[in-house]
Amino acid sequence: MFESASLSRKLSDPEFKVLEGDLRTRLLMTQLQIAEECKYAILLVIAGIDGAGKALIAQRLLEWLDPRHISTDAFYLPTEEEQRYPRMRRYWSVLPAKGRMSIVFGSWYHQPLYDRITGIIDEGHFQEEMHKIASFESLLANEGYILCKLWAHLPRKERRKRARMKSGDALLAVRMNEWGDLAKLDYDLARGSVEEMARITSTAQAPWAVVPGADANYRDALAGQILLDRMEHKLEAPCHPAPAPTPPLKAKGIPGPTILDRLDLSSKQQPKSYRKKLNALQQRLHKLTQADDFKHSGMIVVFEGADAAGKGGCIRRAVRQLDPRIYQIHSIAAPTDEELAHPYLWRFWRRMPSQGRLVVFDRSWYGRVLVERVEGLCPIEDWQRAYQEIADFEGELVESKRKVVKFWLQISKDEQLKRFKSREETPFKRFKITEEDWRNRKNWDSYQAAAVEMIDRTSTINAPWVLIPSEDKKFARIKILETLCNLLSEKRS
Amino acid sequence: MFESASLSRKLSDPEFKVLEGDLRTRLLMTQLQIAEECKYAILLVIAGIDGAGKALIAQRLLEWLDPRHISTDAFYLPTEEEQRYPRMRRYWSVLPAKGRMSIVFGSWYHQPLYDRITGIIDEGHFQEEMHKIASFESLLANEGYILCKLWAHLPRKERRKRARMKSGDALLAVRMNEWGDLAKLDYDLARGSVEEMARITSTAQAPWAVVPGADANYRDALAGQILLDRMEHKLEAPCHPAPAPTPPLKAKGIPGPTILDRLDLSSKQQPKSYRKKLNALQQRLHKLTQADDFKHSGMIVVFEGADAAGKGGCIRRAVRQLDPRIYQIHSIAAPTDEELAHPYLWRFWRRMPSQGRLVVFDRSWYGRVLVERVEGLCPIEDWQRAYQEIADFEGELVESKRKVVKFWLQISKDEQLKRFKSREETPFKRFKITEEDWRNRKNWDSYQAAAVEMIDRTSTINAPWVLIPSEDKKFARIKILETLCNLLSEKRS
Repeated sequence: MFESASLSRKLSDPEFKVLEGDLRTRLLMTQLQIAEECKYAILLVIAGIDGAGKALIAQRLLEWLDPRHISTDAFYLPTEEEQRYPRMRRYWSVLPAKGRMSIVFGSWYHQPLYDRITGIIDEGHFQEEMHKIASFESLLANEGYILCKLWAHLPRKERRKRARMKSGDALLAVRMNEWGDLAKLDYDLARGSVEEMARITSTAQAPWAVVPGADANYRDALAGQILLDRMEHKLEAPCHPAPAPTPPLKAKGIPGPTILDRLDLSSKQQPKSYRKKLNALQQRLHKLTQADDFKHSGMIVVFEGADAAGKGGCIRRAVRQLDPRIYQIHSIAAPTDEELAHPYLWRFWRRMPSQGRLVVFDRSWYGRVLVERVEGLCPIEDWQRAYQEIADFEGELVESKRKVVKFWLQISKDEQLKRFKSREETPFKRFKITEEDWRNRKNWDSYQAAAVEMIDRTSTINAPWVLIPSEDKKFARIKILETLCNLLSEKRS
Repeated sequence: MFESASLSRKLSDPEFKVLEGDLRTRLLMTQLQIAEECKYAILLVIAGIDGAGKALIAQRLLEWLDPRHISTDAFYLPTEEEQRYPRMRRYWSVLPAKGRMSIVFGSWYHQPLYDRITGIIDEGHFQEEMHKIASFESLLANEGYILCKLWAHLPRKERRKRARMKSGDALLAVRMNEWGDLAKLDYDLARGSVEEMARITSTAQAPWAVVPGADANYRDALAGQILLDRMEHKLEAPCHPAPAPTPPLKAKGIPGPTILDRLDLSSKQQPKSYRKKLNALQQRLHKLTQADDFKHSGMIVVFEGADAAGKGGCIRRAVRQLDPRIYQIHSIAAPTDEELAHPYLWRFWRRMPSQGRLVVFDRSWYGRVLVERVEGLCPIEDWQRAYQEIADFEGELVESKRKVVKFWLQISKDEQLKRFKSREETPFKRFKITEEDWRNRKNWDSYQAAAVEMIDRTSTINAPWVLIPSEDKKFARIKILETLCNLLSEKRS
């Protein structure tokens, strides 16, 4: 991987001046075109050896480009505050909006590499981390990001020289020290780990490029040229053909009830004991969320279901007796402009709570494989890949010790009609029913089919779908509270 | 994952008869179209619970389809013989040619699942295996395979019932027993592992489909319908847009010698000591390949370089004193018809040796990123993904304890001309020089650039590229023998 970068190639100042004129003009023009079109975003990851000039590369690029469209972020090992959030959240939070560019230091590569090189994690664990990163970057590439990953390299001899050069040069003195004491670095382990990183994450869409850091002119010219190539190429050839995703099973010929048809919608809660039961469960949930255990974990609850299935009512009852400081309800409607300029999961990542909190989503990221699929709001290749992306996303949450549970509230088509009509007739409920609800109702069967595939493909032991017959609202509310209490009182690693 | 499959759905015999007529006609017609076009191949993986009717599904499909275009293969844990080969070789060997279909039992999923469920490997190791499979299947999808993966499922209750039903039914009696004694199965671990398998390997191109095994009619109709859907969809929509791969760095503006330019081509071997040195090294290599160590490993050596760089001569000297029974030289020319009907790596997998052998490739799988790239024989998205596919491939070899080394023989353009002319003038060498050699020579710079990118992207600690200045043939031969001896005498885990 470091073969070419280990050559000591140089550009004299006059040579560099000649190159620079053309390079910076084209960089700027391309950046402005991207900023204007607002279709793509640029993610420039600068990683590599300490002292190889990572900050200097960024400095030069910021000088050549229009810095108003650029953010710069540096990540070290997570702070105590950052550790209270799911791990990937801090990286999602700096993803640039379409038209913009981010320069990221440290990045999602730093912690796994650091942990591997210092022996905190073993090779298998490290590989798994790299695969997660490859999935993450594949999502980004699919969402229109131009990924440019630079690894700044110094040959071993040059590195020793620079390590001795203390703080004489002001710019070298502010170096990041990502890797701690270089003298103690296990060189072979480090090199092997970086190669393993490149093997797994140098995908066709986001390969690593190695930039030799010994000569400043050569280093900056090469970095600029790589970035320019990536941007120009994306504008010229944004897409290539790839094998088509598998469509949902037609299986039209094959009859048979679905899991949703099979739910016993006649399930009823005795009205007499309802109040008492509800109150007891609400108190139990309150106690569970006050426990020490919960303070170091948290819970994420998703509600999905047909319109008028009773999601709102269930949510209100679920949180009624909770400490208002520990929970948050997110009602998910159409995305904002800013959200539309980011990958679809971004608006959910930004809502991911710190430890010790319960967060409820009234509709959620599953919109991608429900409404967006059924209404044709995104092409098949986008919602097909979402099943796996969502599994990765929830996997991250579970790994951050959050309990994750997803409720599907099921009612019959007749019951929906009854509730729609009652909403229209009751003045204080009328705001709840819109034209869109009636329109969605026409696609009832498609929504049900999409829900069945969603449940089959995304229900897992650690992030299960729980199907709730909601024809009787009281039954649904009790059932949901019971499930939440049971999940929270379960001990799980 | 098993939500829908746990419903006990049934088809009565008359219902089934009605469905069957249409289904089998369409299955057959689609299969014949694929057989005629010879553009795609079908890979049907049947996995799942013992006793859920895996063999019966295949039986029915073989009855519906034209069995002349179908092969069936079943894999158990590897035999002693199979263990002598790199692990994936047995799966590669049954990949169907274009136009054909394979039904695979056991498949590449069986061993990792079995090892995980019986506790032989831990979760991290299992995930890594699943990622490797996802890469393997992604390669297949890109190479035109229609992947259909069925997981035959039985609810726990039904499973218990069938486990008690001994050998009364002849067909149930021949069941595979993939999972050993069901009574001893750790059910939760098994379910968790299968879910993890689906999470990582249910990609958009090759998702798992769960087939409930309780009712034979329903099971077979569903399996047939899924297969039909996949085949029909591939014919209707073979490709979708995906983010374009990153092209090679243009960096035209940036001068500077490459790693190949920097090689010291004036390196010379003193003619006086050549014979003695050569003989000593050849004997040393012979001894090393007779060692016990070597019997349990083996070595794979690749030679690449410009035409007339001296590959043939080096190879002949390297093997001169070896036991002819332990080595094999493969000279790679244009692929055969049969090879063209398979993924490009297939012809190399079939040449992968058992333990204790040394295999030399005179030109190799790197043709994909050299001649195929430079001559435009495959589109950019195909050779771009090859860097990672080759890294995975060589990773498998290294994991099977093979030493892997790749030599790049470098000569100057002038020296090539001299050798070409000398070949034309020497009668017994004339066969070595063709029109194609002169044509390739015109693309000298493109080949050199492709070689530099190849070396930078595929040289790793465990499968390094070694650059050999070959202007002096004697120097190159000594250098290569030295490298081979040093690699073999190295102890590495």
